Amino acid sequence: MSSVYRKIKGGVTAPKGFIANAVSTGIKNPNADRLDMALIYSEVSCTAAGTFTTNRVKAAPVRVSQAHLRDADVRAILVNSGNANACTGVKGVKDARLTARIVGKKLGLKQSQVAVCSTGVIGLPMPMARIEPKLPDLVEGLERMKSLSVAQAIMTSDTTHKQIAVRVMIDGIPVKIGACAKGAGMINPHMATMLCFVTTDAKLSKAALSKCVTESVEGSFNRITIDGDMSTNDSVIVLANGESGAPAIKRQTKWCKMFQQALNFVMLEMAKSLVRDGERVTKFVTVNVRGARTFSDARKVAEAVANSSLVKSSWNGNDPNWGRIIHAVGYSKAMIREELIDIHIGGLAACIGGLEAKTKMDSLRKKVAADAFTIDINLNLCEGEYTIYSSDLSPEYVDFNRSEYAYWKQARKDGLTQQ
Amino acid sequence: MSSVYRKIKGGVTAPKGFIANAVSTGIKNPNADRLDMALIYSEVSCTAAGTFTTNRVKAAPVRVSQAHLRDADVRAILVNSGNANACTGVKGVKDARLTARIVGKKLGLKQSQVAVCSTGVIGLPMPMARIEPKLPDLVEGLERMKSLSVAQAIMTSDTTHKQIAVRVMIDGIPVKIGACAKGAGMINPHMATMLCFVTTDAKLSKAALSKCVTESVEGSFNRITIDGDMSTNDSVIVLANGESGAPAIKRQTKWCKMFQQALNFVMLEMAKSLVRDGERVTKFVTVNVRGARTFSDARKVAEAVANSSLVKSSWNGNDPNWGRIIHAVGYSKAMIREELIDIHIGGLAACIGGLEAKTKMDSLRKKVAADAFTIDINLNLCEGEYTIYSSDLSPEYVDFNRSEYAYWKQARKDGLTQQ
Repeated sequence: MSSVYRKIKGGVTAPKGFIANAVSTGIKNPNADRLDMALIYSEVSCTAAGTFTTNRVKAAPVRVSQAHLRDADVRAILVNSGNANACTGVKGVKDARLTARIVGKKLGLKQSQVAVCSTGVIGLPMPMARIEPKLPDLVEGLERMKSLSVAQAIMTSDTTHKQIAVRVMIDGIPVKIGACAKGAGMINPHMATMLCFVTTDAKLSKAALSKCVTESVEGSFNRITIDGDMSTNDSVIVLANGESGAPAIKRQTKWCKMFQQALNFVMLEMAKSLVRDGERVTKFVTVNVRGARTFSDARKVAEAVANSSLVKSSWNGNDPNWGRIIHAVGYSKAMIREELIDIHIGGLAACIGGLEAKTKMDSLRKKVAADAFTIDINLNLCEGEYTIYSSDLSPEYVDFNRSEYAYWKQARKDGLTQQ
Repeated sequence: MSSVYRKIKGGVTAPKGFIANAVSTGIKNPNADRLDMALIYSEVSCTAAGTFTTNRVKAAPVRVSQAHLRDADVRAILVNSGNANACTGVKGVKDARLTARIVGKKLGLKQSQVAVCSTGVIGLPMPMARIEPKLPDLVEGLERMKSLSVAQAIMTSDTTHKQIAVRVMIDGIPVKIGACAKGAGMINPHMATMLCFVTTDAKLSKAALSKCVTESVEGSFNRITIDGDMSTNDSVIVLANGESGAPAIKRQTKWCKMFQQALNFVMLEMAKSLVRDGERVTKFVTVNVRGARTFSDARKVAEAVANSSLVKSSWNGNDPNWGRIIHAVGYSKAMIREELIDIHIGGLAACIGGLEAKTKMDSLRKKVAADAFTIDINLNLCEGEYTIYSSDLSPEYVDFNRSEYAYWKQARKDGLTQQ
């Protein structure tokens, strides 16, 4: 089937009626002229839906945005990088609310119509003295062509910005979906702060939008997430304003199915780009599990393999080590029968019936040496399937993550904290 | 309380009535003159107990030894390093049984009285043509002073051998316990092959011995194990032959309690030594969790923290990063209340009530820079407690584990496999 959507240029301001802006407030470093605060705004009323981290330690902006999305018609998303505003207690919540109030007032919105997101270091209070004076500029500079700036402003250890836009025809009328995301700071995605903002000029009820968002997140960001574990700040927020002029999209219709496909594509592309740009990642690995007793068992196997430090280290070394893979399958807690397990690497048989296959090592090695490859694991028990998108583990990753200490010391000197 | 046991010299041959030997068969490298096969033997009849990997992919010798311990009075342990005899199908089981039969015959034992263990690479068949001719020498050379050779023969990526012996007075008569172990090849212990063999001249029924072993393993090797996950080959086997002349140790008695304490000490020392000698480990970290709702919750928190790549990377970099620790606490799935969490590093407050403590960063940093330190996490909810022994994660670990490929290539050349 040819796809019902088409990729177009741009990001969150591609859909009609959305404007955006980004400014530099010096949150992380007062002397650096780096974009670190962004605003996405729908010029007309819209519906909003979001999904947030399941981590029980939740950053202040997550708590605030969850309440806002529940209680009001959110029309604006305010986001900063450089400071996660996590583990900052009551002050953190007050700070998050204050920024929403200031921006809301300037936009003529209630505080609760502004969602707030943060990403960055945990445990430091927000440098409000630097942030507050820049908020009026942020609102005044809102315009249609600023999606790239927003995608750049939310980056932390990302090496490249991530944005996308697609067009899908609904009842003969072009509807657009735009998005930006920031990353998989870390290889193990449950440790990353992941942010994704999606805009669309489709018209959907809040209930319909929520269902579409849940399905898309399940097939994308949750596929790069381990066991439902997430960082303190992970947030996906979607705004739909109906400005395309296309009829309202109702559940269980042809149009809804098409919109869902387009939204799935947008989120999956963003999710994959996070893995590809994981810290010091050199390979993109798709782990497909089939033949499991249940969906849940397939997921356990995929996650055990995709999160094994040993398996990931071998991928980094171009080592087609199926022994480590079957070992991870064995401890996944899924029901297995060792003598039924088949493992293919890049389409070549590495292990058949729990035993080494006849494929030449050099052929397997060439597959693992590629930038991207697939591991297919068939448990040959039943129909359970699951796919997860993963990466290798490099010595450089560990080295990169050995210490944030230098940054913290500097933060003290800059007067960002009490010491 | 002063301890009821005293450390003495030696290992598995310290208790009366045990002899041992180790030889070089060239399992991994036919040209290397490295000890790689060992035998531990009780000269008189004895009782035996063991615990084995919970990995659902089980190596052939694990399957064989489980059956032998269930069906017979095991008196000998035959063990090799260099090849795990895992994922080797029916041939692997036949090979394991054959070695037990040959050694048993030479010792005048039934095949089922010989337990068999292997550690090494997964997926390669055992080079039986090299092993079989050396088995007679292995039996003929059995003697009292060879415990060190046994400890050396079972090493794989261990950098040092591990053995211990203690003496405990039971009813006025000295009873000895000896042990050797091989390691935590890997930092994440569920990926290590762990072997531990314990001998004692105490007299215990099979049932009493089994209970003592279960308790000791739970407090030691399971504390360096994640979630019950283990390698395909993990095995702990204990032989008790009663040669000390002390009265039989019955459950629920003072003597049993003393024996248990001594056995706990022996296994915990071995377990800790595995962590310390983990591949490219530079620090020994004790993670204590208190105040959890349940024991199980405390365990979840301890395991989440002790297995977080990010937390472990920061330890490697001497970074007292409590933000990463509380983040792992948050995704552990344990019940928590963020605002109640206290974290101490090396006895100094790092986080109190979910917020940064006043302790100077430099003081915390000094604690994390030490070779060994403790992380205390108090959830301040209830009475659940758990302790786990962990380590840092170094760039060198990943580098070390990037490829076993060179070895495999060599194994092919040496004719160890079918290609």
